[in-house]
Amino acid sequence: MSIIQCVPNFSEGKDESIIKEIVTAISSVEGVKVLDYSLDADHNRSVVTFVGSKDSVLEGAFNGAKKASELIDMTKHSGEHPRMGATDVIPFIPIKNVTMEECVQIAESLGKKIGNELDIPVFLYENAASASHRKNLAKVRKGEYEGLEEKMQQSKWQPDFGPQKPNLKSGATAVSARMPLIAFNVNLNTNDLSIAKKIAKNVRLGGGGLHSVKAMGVELKERNIVQVSMNMVNFKKTPLYRAVELIRAEAKRYGVSVVGTEVIGLVPQEALIDSLEYYMGIEEFKHDQILENRLYQD
Amino acid sequence: MSIIQCVPNFSEGKDESIIKEIVTAISSVEGVKVLDYSLDADHNRSVVTFVGSKDSVLEGAFNGAKKASELIDMTKHSGEHPRMGATDVIPFIPIKNVTMEECVQIAESLGKKIGNELDIPVFLYENAASASHRKNLAKVRKGEYEGLEEKMQQSKWQPDFGPQKPNLKSGATAVSARMPLIAFNVNLNTNDLSIAKKIAKNVRLGGGGLHSVKAMGVELKERNIVQVSMNMVNFKKTPLYRAVELIRAEAKRYGVSVVGTEVIGLVPQEALIDSLEYYMGIEEFKHDQILENRLYQD
Repeated sequence: MSIIQCVPNFSEGKDESIIKEIVTAISSVEGVKVLDYSLDADHNRSVVTFVGSKDSVLEGAFNGAKKASELIDMTKHSGEHPRMGATDVIPFIPIKNVTMEECVQIAESLGKKIGNELDIPVFLYENAASASHRKNLAKVRKGEYEGLEEKMQQSKWQPDFGPQKPNLKSGATAVSARMPLIAFNVNLNTNDLSIAKKIAKNVRLGGGGLHSVKAMGVELKERNIVQVSMNMVNFKKTPLYRAVELIRAEAKRYGVSVVGTEVIGLVPQEALIDSLEYYMGIEEFKHDQILENRLYQD
Repeated sequence: MSIIQCVPNFSEGKDESIIKEIVTAISSVEGVKVLDYSLDADHNRSVVTFVGSKDSVLEGAFNGAKKASELIDMTKHSGEHPRMGATDVIPFIPIKNVTMEECVQIAESLGKKIGNELDIPVFLYENAASASHRKNLAKVRKGEYEGLEEKMQQSKWQPDFGPQKPNLKSGATAVSARMPLIAFNVNLNTNDLSIAKKIAKNVRLGGGGLHSVKAMGVELKERNIVQVSMNMVNFKKTPLYRAVELIRAEAKRYGVSVVGTEVIGLVPQEALIDSLEYYMGIEEFKHDQILENRLYQD
């Protein structure tokens, strides 16, 4: 069975009853399982995490976007987080027995359906982007809801689907296919924030470091230490162990050591097993040797 | 939901039709899933691996033992592997949301049922043993089928359940609860078997080494190297990484290195993640952060 993860973000982070209605609309689809949802009042934004098969995730995501278009009014929305629509972003993430290409196809089908049936403009981004200047979500969303009408008058910011101007109540929606993002931190035995910042810079691609790693230096005041806080945006290209070992090597320059790591939130099993294979030098390990993976095979 | 693994061994390794009938009897129970079965003609013995909930594994195991008592005749059995019954051993192994104590209870209930309903004597061993001299399966089985009648005349070898003498056709059955056994090998960059044997000895408890590790030195002729071949009989007490790192340290004495490891057959996810937590120093990781583990939660 295929498993696709979908993590839509909605522009409502205060009224939980609205988010519950959206979650109910999503989970009403057979084959969809909502794993988590969380509201952020400061950002006035919610994140819903659900999984499903190829057939069910599209319908679940559409139901969520439809309900959000009914219940959220962007003319009245404010919050700290950048946003351009009631359903702001909908990424599809391949987890099991599914390719990135298939997730791109789902993103395209959903975009078309939202454009046609909900009359909301849709921009495809990341792996689903229709042009290279649209890959980066920050660029797609720049100007936000308030700047959408003007932005969409430029030929390079015509939507991929739906009307040629923003939906007044719902704004626009960005839909994508992307790799799972792993929030992964490495703790150092120093309280010198400048060291964490220097290492973070060296670990990032732009600082001469690693592909698919976003990194910044952060203080952990309670523990009186610092950490390199990372988003690993493609663990197949750049695995977790590589970031740990590079940080360990860079830390030596400053006479500090790695004292621990943290995985925040959900992580695919493959990302962990892959790093264990490195550390223990396991030869020719097959993931269906993991007992639990046999239990649910169909 | 609880998950218990059960790995019964049957004294038939040549006639696959018999093993298929036994497998069918086991898998006919709702909630039971047969993961694997394999026949060994030289040993004239088969191993079936199945999983199920607390309620279903007992019934599955009983069905298998009942069918084996109908189809296998121990008066005609010969094979290289030590054995004392048509259904030779039935271990129950806690995998998820179940304690060892609960597995012991299942072993006792099954033993009673086999004794009463199939008229086969049952010996409990390992964690289910009723006395310390019965913990070790090799000791329970010593004398094998042919020596059973004489052995059972000794008061210390009275069965835990069932008749006071062997069942002529089915012999006796050993039932237990135990930890999962992980077959785990560490390869060395030398072809000197004596080095693998020395390291294996030092890694075993008896040689001043680790608890819960059975180890021997083995030649890999095709690759012209040797390996320390281990059974890790309690990965919670003695984790995989500890064996790897101790072998790495011992290997230094002989100027050789660890060049790889092998996990043979099935391994519980927890055994792998636990070792990764060691190598990456992951702090406060919860196993339900693994995306796949969320999918099947009830």
